Amino acid sequence: MFTEFERYIKAQAGLSDVNIKLFRDTAVEKTLRRKDFLLQQGEICRYKIFVSKGLLRTYRTTDNGSEHIMQFSPENSWTTDPESYDNLTPSCYNIDALEQSEVLMWTKKDFNALFENIPALKTYSEALISRNLYRTRQRVFNALSSTAEEKYDDFIKTYPDILARVPLHMVASFLGLSRETLSRIRHAQVKQ
Amino acid sequence: MFTEFERYIKAQAGLSDVNIKLFRDTAVEKTLRRKDFLLQQGEICRYKIFVSKGLLRTYRTTDNGSEHIMQFSPENSWTTDPESYDNLTPSCYNIDALEQSEVLMWTKKDFNALFENIPALKTYSEALISRNLYRTRQRVFNALSSTAEEKYDDFIKTYPDILARVPLHMVASFLGLSRETLSRIRHAQVKQ
Repeated sequence: MFTEFERYIKAQAGLSDVNIKLFRDTAVEKTLRRKDFLLQQGEICRYKIFVSKGLLRTYRTTDNGSEHIMQFSPENSWTTDPESYDNLTPSCYNIDALEQSEVLMWTKKDFNALFENIPALKTYSEALISRNLYRTRQRVFNALSSTAEEKYDDFIKTYPDILARVPLHMVASFLGLSRETLSRIRHAQVKQ
Repeated sequence: MFTEFERYIKAQAGLSDVNIKLFRDTAVEKTLRRKDFLLQQGEICRYKIFVSKGLLRTYRTTDNGSEHIMQFSPENSWTTDPESYDNLTPSCYNIDALEQSEVLMWTKKDFNALFENIPALKTYSEALISRNLYRTRQRVFNALSSTAEEKYDDFIKTYPDILARVPLHMVASFLGLSRETLSRIRHAQVKQ
């Protein structure tokens, strides 16, 4: 499963073979079956996680039992709970596998050592965090300003691949819509 | 107006007098009257902005004319449009003054030079960006999961000072609620 990561990190961050070996030496490889958890609410998120294959989901369950999806993480993307990882505080989120998945994980100690040894990694990581912030701000703006129809249309455009891989109630949960509203929108679009 | 900033940055980032002089040498000072703009949709956001006094607002107007408030920035806080500032792309946001305000601004060139010369500034800035990301993620989660009442209660707890300084329709705009819904909630709370 390291091959996908090697291809990815070479293309994205332009790292040398020597630096990639540093990643390999400290990576924890893990295969997940569907519904396996990588993190559960209340635990500390101790890893930065790269998804080599499959699809993960970050979600939170509220006191009344409803599930809210913060993030889908398909192959060739990173995930973690940044607040829990940075501050070693209990996470409010769960991360589980929606498909059989393969991940590479690095502890904070090991990832910080990579930062020390690979200056280009810092630049790449800062760019990733910035992109994450832009997207999260855009998601706030969509939540404030968009109709249910606009939210769904935006999802189709932004995540066409995810739409085909997850059940509709999860799309509704990600968008903050009820299943009924999302079904109504889809039926209306089919009729048009 | 540099005095407030000096006190703030000493306390927050523990900078020395020599380093603070570097900030002072490149700061652009500006006084804003109420309703003055620092940024308008379509312009490139060329500054990191520190609010020494007053209150700024970041908002976007959609095609149908409705205003959506992304951020309130009171004294002793930073603001910018990170995406526009980082990538020199036209901003989707406006930043204006809700009260008479005093700001200090640094261009990207000057701020990058500060990063070069003051290693502690990098650590401080990364922590700020991370905190911004945590809060923005929490705001997404609230948008997905909270009732209108919960959103308003959360606002009162998180921004008690802002609540007293802005008209209610702006609180509604920040929370993604209609004025009518917010008025209904407030009346219900007064009756209790």
